[in-house]
Amino acid sequence: MKHEIDLSNYEIRSDLVLDNLREEHQKWVKERTTEYKDISVFEVDVDAEKEDLLGKKKGKYVTIKFEDVTDHSNRSNLMKVLTNELKNILEYLNIKETAKCFIVGLGNRNSTPDALGPKTVDQCIVTKYLFDLEGNQVEEGIRNVSCFVPGVMGSTGIESSDVILGIVEKTHPDFLITIDALASSSIERLSKTIQITDTGIHPGSGVGNSRKEISFDTIGIPVIAIGIPMVVDLPTIVNDTIHYFLKQMSYNKENYQKGSHKLTPVTSRNYLKHEEHLTSLEKEKLLGMMGTLSEEAMKSLLFEVLAPIGFNMMVTPKEVDFVIDYLSEVVAESINSSLHQKSLSNKVS
Amino acid sequence: MKHEIDLSNYEIRSDLVLDNLREEHQKWVKERTTEYKDISVFEVDVDAEKEDLLGKKKGKYVTIKFEDVTDHSNRSNLMKVLTNELKNILEYLNIKETAKCFIVGLGNRNSTPDALGPKTVDQCIVTKYLFDLEGNQVEEGIRNVSCFVPGVMGSTGIESSDVILGIVEKTHPDFLITIDALASSSIERLSKTIQITDTGIHPGSGVGNSRKEISFDTIGIPVIAIGIPMVVDLPTIVNDTIHYFLKQMSYNKENYQKGSHKLTPVTSRNYLKHEEHLTSLEKEKLLGMMGTLSEEAMKSLLFEVLAPIGFNMMVTPKEVDFVIDYLSEVVAESINSSLHQKSLSNKVS
Amino acid sequence: MKHEIDLSNYEIRSDLVLDNLREEHQKWVKERTTEYKDISVFEVDVDAEKEDLLGKKKGKYVTIKFEDVTDHSNRSNLMKVLTNELKNILEYLNIKETAKCFIVGLGNRNSTPDALGPKTVDQCIVTKYLFDLEGNQVEEGIRNVSCFVPGVMGSTGIESSDVILGIVEKTHPDFLITIDALASSSIERLSKTIQITDTGIHPGSGVGNSRKEISFDTIGIPVIAIGIPMVVDLPTIVNDTIHYFLKQMSYNKENYQKGSHKLTPVTSRNYLKHEEHLTSLEKEKLLGMMGTLSEEAMKSLLFEVLAPIGFNMMVTPKEVDFVIDYLSEVVAESINSSLHQKSLSNKVS
Amino acid sequence: MKHEIDLSNYEIRSDLVLDNLREEHQKWVKERTTEYKDISVFEVDVDAEKEDLLGKKKGKYVTIKFEDVTDHSNRSNLMKVLTNELKNILEYLNIKETAKCFIVGLGNRNSTPDALGPKTVDQCIVTKYLFDLEGNQVEEGIRNVSCFVPGVMGSTGIESSDVILGIVEKTHPDFLITIDALASSSIERLSKTIQITDTGIHPGSGVGNSRKEISFDTIGIPVIAIGIPMVVDLPTIVNDTIHYFLKQMSYNKENYQKGSHKLTPVTSRNYLKHEEHLTSLEKEKLLGMMGTLSEEAMKSLLFEVLAPIGFNMMVTPKEVDFVIDYLSEVVAESINSSLHQKSLSNKVS
Repeated sequence: MKHEIDLSNYEIRSDLVLDNLREEHQKWVKERTTEYKDISVFEVDVDAEKEDLLGKKKGKYVTIKFEDVTDHSNRSNLMKVLTNELKNILEYLNIKETAKCFIVGLGNRNSTPDALGPKTVDQCIVTKYLFDLEGNQVEEGIRNVSCFVPGVMGSTGIESSDVILGIVEKTHPDFLITIDALASSSIERLSKTIQITDTGIHPGSGVGNSRKEISFDTIGIPVIAIGIPMVVDLPTIVNDTIHYFLKQMSYNKENYQKGSHKLTPVTSRNYLKHEEHLTSLEKEKLLGMMGTLSEEAMKSLLFEVLAPIGFNMMVTPKEVDFVIDYLSEVVAESINSSLHQKSLSNKVS
Repeated sequence: MKHEIDLSNYEIRSDLVLDNLREEHQKWVKERTTEYKDISVFEVDVDAEKEDLLGKKKGKYVTIKFEDVTDHSNRSNLMKVLTNELKNILEYLNIKETAKCFIVGLGNRNSTPDALGPKTVDQCIVTKYLFDLEGNQVEEGIRNVSCFVPGVMGSTGIESSDVILGIVEKTHPDFLITIDALASSSIERLSKTIQITDTGIHPGSGVGNSRKEISFDTIGIPVIAIGIPMVVDLPTIVNDTIHYFLKQMSYNKENYQKGSHKLTPVTSRNYLKHEEHLTSLEKEKLLGMMGTLSEEAMKSLLFEVLAPIGFNMMVTPKEVDFVIDYLSEVVAESINSSLHQKSLSNKVS
Repeated sequence: MKHEIDLSNYEIRSDLVLDNLREEHQKWVKERTTEYKDISVFEVDVDAEKEDLLGKKKGKYVTIKFEDVTDHSNRSNLMKVLTNELKNILEYLNIKETAKCFIVGLGNRNSTPDALGPKTVDQCIVTKYLFDLEGNQVEEGIRNVSCFVPGVMGSTGIESSDVILGIVEKTHPDFLITIDALASSSIERLSKTIQITDTGIHPGSGVGNSRKEISFDTIGIPVIAIGIPMVVDLPTIVNDTIHYFLKQMSYNKENYQKGSHKLTPVTSRNYLKHEEHLTSLEKEKLLGMMGTLSEEAMKSLLFEVLAPIGFNMMVTPKEVDFVIDYLSEVVAESINSSLHQKSLSNKVS
Repeated sequence: MKHEIDLSNYEIRSDLVLDNLREEHQKWVKERTTEYKDISVFEVDVDAEKEDLLGKKKGKYVTIKFEDVTDHSNRSNLMKVLTNELKNILEYLNIKETAKCFIVGLGNRNSTPDALGPKTVDQCIVTKYLFDLEGNQVEEGIRNVSCFVPGVMGSTGIESSDVILGIVEKTHPDFLITIDALASSSIERLSKTIQITDTGIHPGSGVGNSRKEISFDTIGIPVIAIGIPMVVDLPTIVNDTIHYFLKQMSYNKENYQKGSHKLTPVTSRNYLKHEEHLTSLEKEKLLGMMGTLSEEAMKSLLFEVLAPIGFNMMVTPKEVDFVIDYLSEVVAESINSSLHQKSLSNKVS
C-alpha cells in the first residue's frame, strides 16, 4: 500500500511557530515567567538560518499560553500580560508614541470562529479624526489610531492586501497591527494561545481567507500580527487523538513499571505532559500498521481517508460564540492600553 | 426681535432633488408612468444653468415614489420598476455588459436607519474572484462584480472616499454603484422614495457620514448613486407640521366656501394634495408672528429654538428595523438583476 | 372651527409619572440629592386620592435623571445611583435576600429603541439552575435569579402577560423585575431618565407592545418595573417645540426688560429652566389662534393635522443603537449588584 | 488494560433514528422515492417491540437526506419535499385545517449551530393575533399560528419544557411543532438530514439544552419534532475516521483482488458505500490492539483518551453560519406552506 498523493492543495499546517518546533529546536525558546501561575510567555527569534528549518519567516515570535477565558480573573490577568507584551514589541521595534497606528481586523465577520479580527476592531478606540480636525491639539498621551475591517474575498471579491495597501497609500500610517483567527495543528492550544509577531501575515495563514502577504516587505511599514488559533482541521484532530492514545499508553506503562499500585484516574491530565517513548514494536502492537507510520505518512493517510468526506468540517470550542466575545474584548482592551498612555476605557466600572 | 444666527453649521437640507424644486421648477420634471398604480417615476435633467438654481450637481436624477414596502406585492412591484430604471441608466451611460462593477455600501452598519448601504451590499452577488480565478471562462451573462463597505469615519477614523479611491486604484473597476441612506426634508417621502443619479455622492449628502465627493470627477469612472431617505431632522418635522396645518386650514376654508355641508372626516388625506393659498392676514390670524415668517425665517427660528435641546434627535419610521431589511433586499435584488443577464438569485423559491 | 374628534385611539401619553404632574402637584415630589452633580433622584408616593388625579396607579415612583450615557463617567456614576435605588426599593418592599427573583425583559429585540429589555436581560446573571442542581449549597450572598424575554405579540402572537404568568406558575419566583422601553411626552427626558416603580406594568405602557397588566394584582407577587423613555411621538415633539418657542420668547422678553444689553447667545440652554409667563395677548400675537389654545386643544389640533400622515414615525436619539447598548449595560450591572451581595461581574477589569 | 469507566455522564449518542439501526434492522426502513435524484426519504415506524431494541420512542420517524443547501436548486427542491412530508404527517395525525398550531424554536440563539430553532421561528408567519382581533373573520385558508423561542437553561435558568407547558396552558393550541438542532453520531449526515417525528423531544436530545420530555404524554397535544443534526462530538469523529479507514482498506483490497489495474483515485467517494468485511486478523494487522476492539470498547477507549482534553470541542461544517441561515429559511418556508392553504410568503419574488 503506497500513499503517493498530491498534497499541494492540502497540508496540516499551523500558523503557530511553537507547533513547528521539533524537539531539537526547543532550545531556541526563551520562556519568560509572569506573575500569574496559569499564564506563560515564550519567545522565539527566528533568524535567516532558522527560517528554512522552521518554514517560518525571520522575525520575533512571542507566544502567550493561558487558560479558559470564560473565567473572569483569567481574562483580567491575560489582559495585563498581553498589554505588557504589546508594549515590549512596540519598544523593540522602536515605535514612538507619536507614530500613527492602523489596526486591521482580518477574517469574516459572519463566520463565528473567524470573526476575532472584526470583533476586536469594533472595540478599538479610534482617534485619527481628532487629529485630522484639531491638528496638534489632541491631549498628550493619546496616539493617532485608525482601524479597518477589509472583509474576505468570498464576500467582497477583493484581496484584503489590496484594500489595506490602498488605504495605507491614502492615509500614511506609521505602523500596522493586524488581528486574525488562526488555524492550529493542536487541539490543546485552541483559543488558549496568543501569538504576536513582527513578521506580519503570510500566504496560507489565517483560517483561509488571506492570500497575499501583508508585511514590511509589501506595505513598507512595520506590521505587528496578533493571532489566536480558533479552529483545527479534521485530520489534525484525529492525528492528535492517536498521539494522545500513544502518550497515555506510554504513561500508563511507565507508571505501572514504577510500581504504582494506585491507579491514576483515567480522566487525569497528568499524561498530557508525559513524553511518549514507546518502542517501534510496542507502537505496532498497539496500532498495527498505523503505529509504524512516520508523522508525515500518518497525515497523508488521514488526508486520503477523509478526502471523500470533504474537509469542510472544523473543530471549535463548543462555546466558541462566547469565547470569541471574550477574546476580542481582551485583545481590544490590551491594544487600547498599550497604544495610548492615557487610559481610554469603554467599559462601565 | 431679530434672528441673526450663523447657520453655517446647520441647514435644513435634502439630498433629494425633488425637495429642492420650487413651484416654478416643476416643469423640468418628466413623469413616467409605470404599470403599477402606486409607483411613479420622475426624471430631472440638471444642466449647467439649473445646477446653480437648484444647488444640485449637473446630471440625471431619477426618482421612484412608492408605498409601504412591508407589503409583499408593493415590494415585488418596486423591484421590477427599480431593476428597469437601473438598466436604463446603465444604457444611458453606455456601460457595456463586460464593464466591471464595484458596489459600495455607504453608512454605518451599527446604526439602524443608516445601515441601508451595508445591508444591501451583504445581499449583492459577488463574482470578481471567479474572473480572477478562471479568466475569461466565466459563463456568459455574468458580470464582474466586487463590493465593499467602507464604514464610517466615527468608527474607522478614515474617510470613505479614501478607502474607495484606494481600492479603485488597486482593482480597476469600470464603474461604481453606491447605496446610501439619505436625509430628507419631508416626512412624506421617508422610506418611500428611491433616488438614482449619475452624479455620485457630494459633500453634505447622506445621514452625515460622507464628507468628500465620490464622483466621476474624483474617482475617474462613472458613479451611479442610489439613495433612500431614512431620517428627517427635528426642525424639518416641526416645519412640515406647521405647513400641514396651514394646508389643512386652507383646504377646510375652501371646502366650506364651496358649500360643503358634510364635514370631511379629519383624518382624510385629501388635504395633503391641496395647494395652500391663504392670505397673509389669514396666516397671521392663525399663527400670529409665526405666520408672517418666510420659509427661511421659519427655519432659522426653529433652529434657534431647538438648538439648546440639541439636534441629536432623528425622526424615523417606527418600523425602521424591518423597513431597512425589506428595502435592502429590494435594492440588492434589483442590482443583481440589472447587472447580470443570467438570473443569479439567493432566495428559496 | 371646532375640534371634536375621537381621541380614544390616541393620546399624547407618558409612562413617566413626572410628565403627568401639573404645577400644583409639584409639592408631592421629594427630591433626593446624590453625590453626583448631574444626577438627581425624585420620589413620588401615589396614594388612592392621587391615583385619580394623576391617572397613575397607586404606589411608589422613583425617577432618576441623568446626563448623556455615552460618557464613561456619567455611566459609572449612574450605575452607583441606580444600584442604590434598587436596593432601597427591595428593602422598602421587604424582599429578603433569599427571595427568588424573576427578571423579565419586555419589548422587541429586533426594534432598536424597543430592545432595552431584551438586551438588559442578556447581561443579567442567572443562578436558578445552580440552586436547582445543588440545593442549598450555593455560596452565600448569591440570590436565586432566573430571567426571560417573552417577545412581542407581533412576532409570537402571544400576550407577554400570558407567557409571564405561565412561567411564574411553573417556577414560583418570589418577586418580578421588569425592564421596558417607555414612551415619553417630553424630548428632554428621552434616554436620560430611569423610572422605578412597584406598581408594575399597565395597559398602554411601553412603546406599544404590552396590552395586559403585569402587577401584584395579576401575578400575585411584587413587580418592580424599571423603565427608560426611548421614543417620543410626533405630535409630542411638535407640541414641545411650540412650548419651547413660547418659553424662549418669555425668557428673552424678561431679560430684555431687566435691562440686559448683552445678548444671551441664542444657543444657550438658560431659557429651558425659565418659567414661561406670557400674557394671553402676547401668546396670540406670537402664535395667533394657536396661541389661544389650551394644552388639550393644541394636542387635538396636532393629532388632527398629523393623522393623515400616519403616526408611524418616532423620534429617537440619533445615536440610539449605542445609547441602548450603554443603558442596557448600566441597568443589567445595577440589577446584578443589587440582587447579589457577592460581586458577580461579567466584565474585564 | 481494562476500560471500566463510568460513562453515565457521557455517551456517543444520536438523536437520529437511522443512526441507531443495526444491519438487521434495515428491513424496517421504508424508502420513498422523490422526484429529485439527490433527495431521499426514509420512514421508520417504531412500535412497542422496536422501542426497546432501538432505544427510540414509539412513533413515526421520517428522515429526509439531501445534499449541500448552499446550492440554490438543492434548497428549492428540499423545500418542496419537506413541505410535502409535513403535510403528510399532519394528515397522518388527523390534524384539521382549523387546528391551532404553536411553533417552538428550541436551542440557543447565541450559539451558531444551536440557533436553528430560534432562526426558523423568526421566519414563521404568525397569525394568532389576527384571530384574537377578528375572530372568525380571518380569511379562509389561513391557520391560527403562534410561536415562541423559550431559550436555554444556561441563559434563563428555566427549563424549556416549563416555559412551553406554561404557555400551552394559557393559550390552548391544538398541536405543537418543535424545531431543534440535533447531535449526530455520523459526520456524513451533518447538516444534510432532516428528521421529522411525532414522538416529540426526549431527555438527552438536542445539542444539550433540553432536559425534560416535550411530547403528547407531557403536554397533552400532538408534538411534531423537526430536527437537523448540526454538530458531532469529538470521539464520534475519531471513531468515524477509524471506520472510514477500515472501509477504505477493505474496498482497496477487494478492488485489487478483482484485478482492477487502474487505481481508483484516492479522493473517490466510492468506498463510502462499500460494506467493510475485513477479517479479525486483517484488522489487527492494520490497527493493532485498536483493531480488535468492539464498537463499544473503542468508544470507551476514545472517551478515556480524550477526557483530559475536555469534551468542550465540537465538529461543525466550516460554513455553519451560512448553512444555518439557509436551513432555517427552508424549514420556515416549508412550515409556512404546509400550515396555511393560502400562500403567505415573506420574500420578494
